[in-house]
Amino acid sequence: MDINQFLSDNALNMKPSPIRELLSMINKPGMISFAGGFPNPLSFPIPEIKQIMNEVLDEQGTQALQYGGTDGNRSLREEIAKRYIKQGMDIDADNIIITTASQQAIDLTARVFVNPGDTVVVGLPSYLGALQAFNSVRANIVGAEKDEELEAVVRAMCMSGKKPKFIYAIPDFQNPSGLTMTVEQRKYMVHIARKYDLLIVEDSPYREIRFEGEHQPLIATMAPERTIVLGTFSKTFVPGFRLGWVIAPKEIVYRYNLAKQSSDLCSPIFDQCVAAKYLEKGYFEKNLEKTIELYRHKRDFMLECLEKYMPENVKWTKPEGGLFLFVQLPEGYDTTELFKMAIDQNVAFVIGEAFFCDGSGKNTMRLNFSFMDDANIDEGIKRLATTIRRLFESR
Amino acid sequence: MDINQFLSDNALNMKPSPIRELLSMINKPGMISFAGGFPNPLSFPIPEIKQIMNEVLDEQGTQALQYGGTDGNRSLREEIAKRYIKQGMDIDADNIIITTASQQAIDLTARVFVNPGDTVVVGLPSYLGALQAFNSVRANIVGAEKDEELEAVVRAMCMSGKKPKFIYAIPDFQNPSGLTMTVEQRKYMVHIARKYDLLIVEDSPYREIRFEGEHQPLIATMAPERTIVLGTFSKTFVPGFRLGWVIAPKEIVYRYNLAKQSSDLCSPIFDQCVAAKYLEKGYFEKNLEKTIELYRHKRDFMLECLEKYMPENVKWTKPEGGLFLFVQLPEGYDTTELFKMAIDQNVAFVIGEAFFCDGSGKNTMRLNFSFMDDANIDEGIKRLATTIRRLFESR
Repeated sequence: MDINQFLSDNALNMKPSPIRELLSMINKPGMISFAGGFPNPLSFPIPEIKQIMNEVLDEQGTQALQYGGTDGNRSLREEIAKRYIKQGMDIDADNIIITTASQQAIDLTARVFVNPGDTVVVGLPSYLGALQAFNSVRANIVGAEKDEELEAVVRAMCMSGKKPKFIYAIPDFQNPSGLTMTVEQRKYMVHIARKYDLLIVEDSPYREIRFEGEHQPLIATMAPERTIVLGTFSKTFVPGFRLGWVIAPKEIVYRYNLAKQSSDLCSPIFDQCVAAKYLEKGYFEKNLEKTIELYRHKRDFMLECLEKYMPENVKWTKPEGGLFLFVQLPEGYDTTELFKMAIDQNVAFVIGEAFFCDGSGKNTMRLNFSFMDDANIDEGIKRLATTIRRLFESR
Repeated sequence: MDINQFLSDNALNMKPSPIRELLSMINKPGMISFAGGFPNPLSFPIPEIKQIMNEVLDEQGTQALQYGGTDGNRSLREEIAKRYIKQGMDIDADNIIITTASQQAIDLTARVFVNPGDTVVVGLPSYLGALQAFNSVRANIVGAEKDEELEAVVRAMCMSGKKPKFIYAIPDFQNPSGLTMTVEQRKYMVHIARKYDLLIVEDSPYREIRFEGEHQPLIATMAPERTIVLGTFSKTFVPGFRLGWVIAPKEIVYRYNLAKQSSDLCSPIFDQCVAAKYLEKGYFEKNLEKTIELYRHKRDFMLECLEKYMPENVKWTKPEGGLFLFVQLPEGYDTTELFKMAIDQNVAFVIGEAFFCDGSGKNTMRLNFSFMDDANIDEGIKRLATTIRRLFESR
């Protein structure tokens, strides 16, 4: 039977995530992987989760195991609202819808706004999972590398009758680059969005994991009428509960609600009850501090190892937060070639090209510093540096 | 700002679920609701869940709280496979993908197979959530009421160049009708699907909740090459974990996997670990027996109340399992009118019309018998009967 005849055009357009595909190659003994975006299990507050789970079952077991509203647990939405109100947003719980982690938040964004062929503007590079979700609805994905490019790209699309629906940005410790937008860059993006009447999707999964320096303002506080904020507990609490959220003007939240109804009715209820209590009890702040400390150390340690082992003409970013840094080889080298050699040496990363919607970035790669222990970071970066030298010498 | 200009055609086509909308009207004190499809909290195995949760956190906390594979927890898939192998299916764990409950299973089905305008064939009536998901991708939804209609409908669509992608069926204790397809009806559906080369989507969330009589064979055992089985733990375990599954030939499962990657990466991991252990320990069977007993009693009790209170010309189905029965007023009466009167009397149901893709069924309604306690079933059916008499008298 020929299955392809039954597939939708969207399904035929879906490609496997290079990360997910890699993970299967990487699951072999002795492999040191900087590929995944996994939080460190040391950051999981298991005793607190255990205590709260038992309380939830004892006090509200029948509600926590029953169906829930599509918009999500109200206490949880109130707790999330509080955190954003502190950052200057003028919202309440009804501006928020809970999603099955931030991948669903991105997916619903694609479904609510994008027709096949509709333009969306992303960074060069940008988050792979977002490219995948936009690709799954056959968006016309256009990249803008630097600020100066943004208006040129938007204007060109508008003039060719393909006005973008939105700009998708990860302003804080971007995935994969690790870079943070300055306040001027944020203002400029808002200026462009207003001038051309576009939405802004502000995806900020790492914002709260800042190691140093000042928080930059949320773009949503500068353009609340047109900014949709996406967030998640995957990096600041645990990913296994699959909890994220969308914050937007209420008439937009209503559209996400309709799309979510037919997508999965509601996100895991029990997990939402646990998360709500975890926030209410103040455990979130305490554990976040520990996590920041842990990841700051990991970043510092990986930067040291890079200094120590890498050949001179290799560059990398120094993120002020988040989970990733981005490495650049000299022009002309291809990290896809490097990847195969690295896997043989039992070290893995994500090929940078996967993050570039225009096929550029061939000489780049993303390294995750949150997951591996120090000994493995040291050994892994050493192996990677040796492999890069070998690649250089092969020319 | 005009939000509508940004919306996708699919989003503009999405309508709120009448059930979800009703639920907000129904949340008032004193309301007796037969509207939702809620399992009875008495069926929730809270002590067993508590025990297993603590074990999962103690024994595999870091894995259970981390990201997981898109296809889902392997032990859980193996346990699910075993249950279907017993029923004659020739599958293994890799024929299964875990979904965020069966609504996502339906939604992925729509996304994997349906282009805007593509025909899908459903029952008259059929499950509202499926109609909503098919509607969200702008399917051409065509209904077939009786067996004799099925070939006529399929042939007519094929002849007009709109060959259906699949037949969507709920063969066991259908939602909303409560009816079960006989083995002959199943064979006939397979015959039509083979003759016209269509897929069959066999959605069977209630199959295991049978009160009496023999299990009919799964359609998938008769046409394994073209049948996609959808299942869920929402009615047999707990809905709050949001766990369902798709079983299909491996090349089809691969397509679901791609679609799920960009939808939500993976379903709740912790909940999957708990469900896997719950099945492994044999708790599932034991609790299912209790649930069947509870719901058999509820069905019998509701049938008794209907006998006792309803006017003579009101008819209803007598389901052999599941959670719902379907009530029919004489032709010419409209349950939308009845609904408003019933809400005033503090009793609620779902208007049958919502389940008919062709706008028929105006004289029907769905009653859930799983959720309410006996006193409320008695009082609620009494109120409903009184309201129906009043509707009759108003003519």
